[in-house]
Order: sequence, then structure tokens, then C-alpha cells
Amino acid sequence: MDAKNYIYGRNSVIEALLTNTRKINKVLISKNASNDVKINEIIKLSKEKNIIFQFVPKEKFKEFSNIPHQGVIAMISPIEYMDFYEFLEQKNKSFSRIIILDGVEDPHNLGAIIRTAACAGYNAVIIPSRRNAQVSAIVEKTSAGAINHIPIIQVNSLSNVIDKLKDNDYWIIAADAHGKDNYFDVNYTDMNFALIMGGEETGVSKNNLKKSDFIVKIPMLRDFNSLNVSNAAAAIIYESVRQTVQTQKHSV
Amino acid sequence: MDAKNYIYGRNSVIEALLTNTRKINKVLISKNASNDVKINEIIKLSKEKNIIFQFVPKEKFKEFSNIPHQGVIAMISPIEYMDFYEFLEQKNKSFSRIIILDGVEDPHNLGAIIRTAACAGYNAVIIPSRRNAQVSAIVEKTSAGAINHIPIIQVNSLSNVIDKLKDNDYWIIAADAHGKDNYFDVNYTDMNFALIMGGEETGVSKNNLKKSDFIVKIPMLRDFNSLNVSNAAAAIIYESVRQTVQTQKHSV
Repeated sequence: MDAKNYIYGRNSVIEALLTNTRKINKVLISKNASNDVKINEIIKLSKEKNIIFQFVPKEKFKEFSNIPHQGVIAMISPIEYMDFYEFLEQKNKSFSRIIILDGVEDPHNLGAIIRTAACAGYNAVIIPSRRNAQVSAIVEKTSAGAINHIPIIQVNSLSNVIDKLKDNDYWIIAADAHGKDNYFDVNYTDMNFALIMGGEETGVSKNNLKKSDFIVKIPMLRDFNSLNVSNAAAAIIYESVRQTVQTQKHSV
Repeated sequence: MDAKNYIYGRNSVIEALLTNTRKINKVLISKNASNDVKINEIIKLSKEKNIIFQFVPKEKFKEFSNIPHQGVIAMISPIEYMDFYEFLEQKNKSFSRIIILDGVEDPHNLGAIIRTAACAGYNAVIIPSRRNAQVSAIVEKTSAGAINHIPIIQVNSLSNVIDKLKDNDYWIIAADAHGKDNYFDVNYTDMNFALIMGGEETGVSKNNLKKSDFIVKIPMLRDFNSLNVSNAAAAIIYESVRQTVQTQKHSV
């Protein structure tokens, strides 16, 4: 674990929570930590700043055994997340494309999706701050550094964000095995859109499916369940690229 | 590590090498193992059967510390690989589609590609027995069980296999960043083909690129290097599915 990816010790974590909230992914507190006033302060601040804190068995701290962590570690994102409203205010020259992840828990999948979205020229990746992998050192590595090439937006409520996107002329496309249309029967070239990919186990949440303008499926040509979520994202994202490139060619 | 995925002990490994060669992925020999006649026999048999053997530091054996391994472990594939010539002799009703992996080392990528190939109705996945991940318990898991839904063929020489496929009316398509055409400008619907995806670091080997009928690239819409190999495979594999499904629709 690279030292730049965490802050350790009770005073340092309190300081980080007070001054630098946006970069903390979560706070780990050892179950064996003596429950003093500083631990309580850390819990209170985490709640206020809407940062996840977890009580973990002391084995979780083994990898930090060389540092004086006092039973508290704050995991830091290697990037600054972009603010959603700041993103909305940007004027984009062409149509805007976003990918929204709704419960993608495997950091390898998150990294691969960020990488593919960057290659495809997408404008942003939106992740919820809970029940989804956050941008960590593993994600940085599996994205091959793509986390520095595309804005990543961390939000507390996907539901609110989807509403706001709709208010701002985005079409919402959700991927779901029970979708009505095949994903390649949608025309991606003439609209702003946000593509929602669901988590490995759960798929896109019902509430977010309801808000979607299109629900698309990936056809199965053999009786087998589904693609890995990053592979599914790649198929759909690159179909939007194919349409863009082939449309541009025809209009020359 | 699930007990069904390895064989331990000198006599057992010798027995497995003598009787059941095709299912062994590799043999691990502890550097600390006393170098007796049985170890020499294991090395000799592994060479004869073209099975990789590795001398590994004793730390590698920590996960097997509860079993009397005598410094020798044979890692077994959870599946029976299909024989290449047996595959060729099968009569397929429609056009045949194969994916060939040339140096894909990450088991997560191998698992995801097998899963996507199964979903896309591909006829086989071909992997070389060296310098490529083999089908292991991790691959089984990351493929979500798809290893049991598509034939997987392990071969000693990709070069020979490619020649044989060409003799059998397969077109060879390699994916490479310096390809001439975009992958979606190829018509996948009217031919037998084998798609070669290269390893994470090395890409498709020069020799195999030379033998290919088409070299296709995935266009980058932002100045970023490349997709994760399983995501790249998904984009191309599902383009062939899109063409198939949309062609069938038009011909109704």
C-alpha cells in the first residue's frame, strides 16, 4: 500500500476530516481501538461529512503494522473528484456522454470501465459514494492511469443526479438483462446521454431503471447469463463510438 | 485454494503426470525440496509431457501448509481442455467463430474473455500452454462458470494452429493498435474466423500478426493508450454479434 494513499493516526485523520473531506474514501477504525474522545470525534466528523467509517478486525491493520496508526486509517482517493454542478456548468462543444455506475463493487471493473470511457472520449464517470467501489490505488492501477484523463464525479444520491441530468437535456439509458431493445438499436449520435451500468450482483436499481428513457439489453447468443460488467460497458460504449465514427465518415 | 484444484506429494504428482497429463496446468517444486530421485522423475515427466514446472521459494507453499505436500504441488485445470483436432473435425451448422489469446496473463482478463465469448455464442477459446494464463480456479470464478459453456483448447504452438485454421477456411483477424482498419469496418457475418487478442503488455506477437488476414484497431477518441484486453475483446466480439443479429433481421 502506497503511503500517499492513506492518512494514519487519530490527530491526522481528524485534521484531514476537518480540512480535506472530498478526497477521503473511507475511514477504517480498528475494533480493538480504545474508544476515546478522539475516536468519537472521528466518527462524528465522518457522519457530518458523509464519509463511510468502518470498524474492522485488527487483522485488517496488518498491512499498516510498520506505522503508528493508533487504530485509525483514512483511505484517500488518488484523485480529486470533480463536482457534479461544476461539470454541468461546463460548456461542451459537442454532445456530452457520461457513464453512471450503480453498485459496481469490484475495483478491477471500476478501473477497466474508467479506462474504456476515457478511450471512448466520454465526458465523465459518475459513481455513488456508497455501495460502489471508490477510486483507490488499485483502481488507479487497473485503469492504467486513465483516472487522470477523464473527470470522475462522486455523488451522494444517484437519484438526484439523474433528475438533474434530465433537467439538463440528457437522455438516460440503463443496461439491464430484461431491457426491451438491443443496445445497438439505439442511436447514440444525436443526443446528450448518461449510460447507467448496474453492479455485479444487483444490476441497476429499480428506482433508477424507472427514471430511464431507454432500457437496453445485450443479446445472448448462447444460453448463458451475462457479461462481466466492464465487458458489458465496453460493448455499449464502443457501439456509441462506432456510430459516431461511421456517421462522421458518411457525412463527409 | 480449493483442494480439487491441486494434487500434492511426490508419488501423487508422478501418478498424475503418468496418467492424466492434459489437466495439469503446472507443477510447483519448492526450492527447499531435497533433490531426490522422485523430484528428478517429476522434472523428467513434466518435460516429456510439455508441462511447465517451476522452482518456487518456500513462501509460495504457505497456503498449502496444512497438507503433506513434500515440496511438490501440481495445479490442475478445473476443466478438460478440448483437443484442437477434435474441434476441427466437428461439423458446425453455421459459421464458426474462435477467439485466440496470445499472451493474456491476468486470470481476471482470461475469465472475462471466456465469459464474453460464451455469451456471444463463439465456438471456442484457444490459449497457448505457455506465456498465457491457464484455466484455474480464479479463472473459473471470474468467468462466472462460463468455462463449462464453451470449449477451451490449450495448444503448444499458436503458430501451427493458425496455419491449420487457414487450411480449414478460417480467416485470421488480429487486434493491434497499429491496425489499418477500424474493427467495425470488417464484415464478420459471412466467414469462419479466428480473432487474436494479444497480451496486456506485449500485444499480438509479430509472427502471428504476419499470418493474419486482417489487422484491426479500436479507435481512440481521446489521447489515451488502449483498452483493457478483456474490454477490447468485448468491443470486437460484440460487434460481430451486432452484425449477425442485424443481418438476420434484415434478411427476414
